[in-house]
Amino acid sequence: MRKSIIGVMGPGAKARDEDLALAVELGRLIAEQGWTLLSGGRKSGVMEAVSKGASLAGGLTIGVLPTRDREMISDYVDIPIITDMGSGRNNINVLSSDVVIACGMESGTASEVALAIKAERSVILLNCGAEAEKFFLKIGASSVQVATSPTEAISKAKLILAAP
Amino acid sequence: MRKSIIGVMGPGAKARDEDLALAVELGRLIAEQGWTLLSGGRKSGVMEAVSKGASLAGGLTIGVLPTRDREMISDYVDIPIITDMGSGRNNINVLSSDVVIACGMESGTASEVALAIKAERSVILLNCGAEAEKFFLKIGASSVQVATSPTEAISKAKLILAAP
Amino acid sequence: MRKSIIGVMGPGAKARDEDLALAVELGRLIAEQGWTLLSGGRKSGVMEAVSKGASLAGGLTIGVLPTRDREMISDYVDIPIITDMGSGRNNINVLSSDVVIACGMESGTASEVALAIKAERSVILLNCGAEAEKFFLKIGASSVQVATSPTEAISKAKLILAAP
Amino acid sequence: MRKSIIGVMGPGAKARDEDLALAVELGRLIAEQGWTLLSGGRKSGVMEAVSKGASLAGGLTIGVLPTRDREMISDYVDIPIITDMGSGRNNINVLSSDVVIACGMESGTASEVALAIKAERSVILLNCGAEAEKFFLKIGASSVQVATSPTEAISKAKLILAAP
Repeated sequence: MRKSIIGVMGPGAKARDEDLALAVELGRLIAEQGWTLLSGGRKSGVMEAVSKGASLAGGLTIGVLPTRDREMISDYVDIPIITDMGSGRNNINVLSSDVVIACGMESGTASEVALAIKAERSVILLNCGAEAEKFFLKIGASSVQVATSPTEAISKAKLILAAP
Repeated sequence: MRKSIIGVMGPGAKARDEDLALAVELGRLIAEQGWTLLSGGRKSGVMEAVSKGASLAGGLTIGVLPTRDREMISDYVDIPIITDMGSGRNNINVLSSDVVIACGMESGTASEVALAIKAERSVILLNCGAEAEKFFLKIGASSVQVATSPTEAISKAKLILAAP
Repeated sequence: MRKSIIGVMGPGAKARDEDLALAVELGRLIAEQGWTLLSGGRKSGVMEAVSKGASLAGGLTIGVLPTRDREMISDYVDIPIITDMGSGRNNINVLSSDVVIACGMESGTASEVALAIKAERSVILLNCGAEAEKFFLKIGASSVQVATSPTEAISKAKLILAAP
Repeated sequence: MRKSIIGVMGPGAKARDEDLALAVELGRLIAEQGWTLLSGGRKSGVMEAVSKGASLAGGLTIGVLPTRDREMISDYVDIPIITDMGSGRNNINVLSSDVVIACGMESGTASEVALAIKAERSVILLNCGAEAEKFFLKIGASSVQVATSPTEAISKAKLILAAP
């Protein structure tokens, strides 16, 4: 039995303090479930925070990196996948995740939510703002859910993974 | 002097009749400006309609295809670029366009608008719906504009291309 | 009827003078056949030389670029496709070409010949060296041919394009 | 300290029995060194054999998959990275590996060796044939080595990883 991979997507340098706090908590909870974490892998914003949360709780962390610059890799990423594809790697992030959680919102994260809907991956929105929620619920229908806390996001992810 | 490349993105099979009518008109106007058209290249929806409009008006049309299946290529595409990358090719669509116009909205198109904002490409939204407009204006700020007709979209594109 | 696209691959900065002279001639002959040229698009080596040859003879030239740096684009490329994928774009080069001609040899070109064989594209080797010829004829069997001049490469390409 | 990632590339359906036997042994030795294995991830040929060897010896195995078809994933892959990029994923394979070992030879493997040389990754050739050895030693110079057994390949990889 392969471990489930949970992709957490969110802003890099534009992440707000609350995005970061939520990401650390998400990472910790993902590790505690025994799931593997996947993120964009950079030493910045939600990618760094969620990898830190998961890693410090003993979880395995994958980072799918946009460039070949090894200085950019978060110290909390165990397995760096180097794509050298810039934002072209966003599709790999969502295809490789069993469930996608967006934590905070900016354009790169928006592309990942949209690509996840396109690929029929389940997406959970956390702290993404009312405009994002309305838009993605409209275009994503049943594959998009909103969570109001990391704990609720994990509960929803569990139900998704348990579905046949 | 290289010709400007205008990328028109929009739904495939999910396109509505009005998306298609707008796309044909957009294609015609792009060709009349002497610009090159770029689309997702498939024989479906907005990709087919905009390529038809441009081609019948004598324009040059590029299609950036998601798969190797040559049956999928629109007959109105002069230059098929075969990526075999699925939705991973969406980033190439926007990076290769001097201006991006979204005509109609679904998840693939949403990913292209988001990737365009990320790449600091100018985006014009046409017939994308109020939720999309509110969301992308929020995350895209000055790089996103709304047009209410193909003619207005072309006027806005002209101003963008003329900017220093 | 869509025009045939001929991909010419070869070294960038490492190109030798004879590679460059052959590439200019290849570009000219491709344009004279009414074919569209596709190359890696950079302002360097065989990419620059073949684009120059084709462009000055009135041909249409496509460049599939590895990075977003617009300063790198050859002035002789009419249609730049911006991938931002580094060498990951090499597979797009060969998939988008009806026939692949390698003019000179180094590692990037070798990857394109190998990917072309993998994708069952016909490949013509020109000035690639005895080791490359022996190796690619071994792994590529009937899809690989050797030409000893640009004129012979064009004759072989014509036969390939005429085959049912 | 991040674990080293060793990429093993080789034929799928075209793999010979001796390629498969060498791949199982390579996988086992990689796991015994405490290294992480990366392969193309499919349930076929060298990818399957090396993943099996590593997995049964307790190692962690990554597979970078060409398609979205989950039936293709080797049962011995712990972490499937889904690219949906066909052979475009070959560049990710080599960029993500600290050392690349080619075990057996066909066109896809040849593209990976060539891309590894391009990216200045160290490559070790095992059972690739005299033509491949001559060609890649010529274009790859100091970054290419030949090994005559899995044990020798591992010894060479150790020296590469220990270099400053």
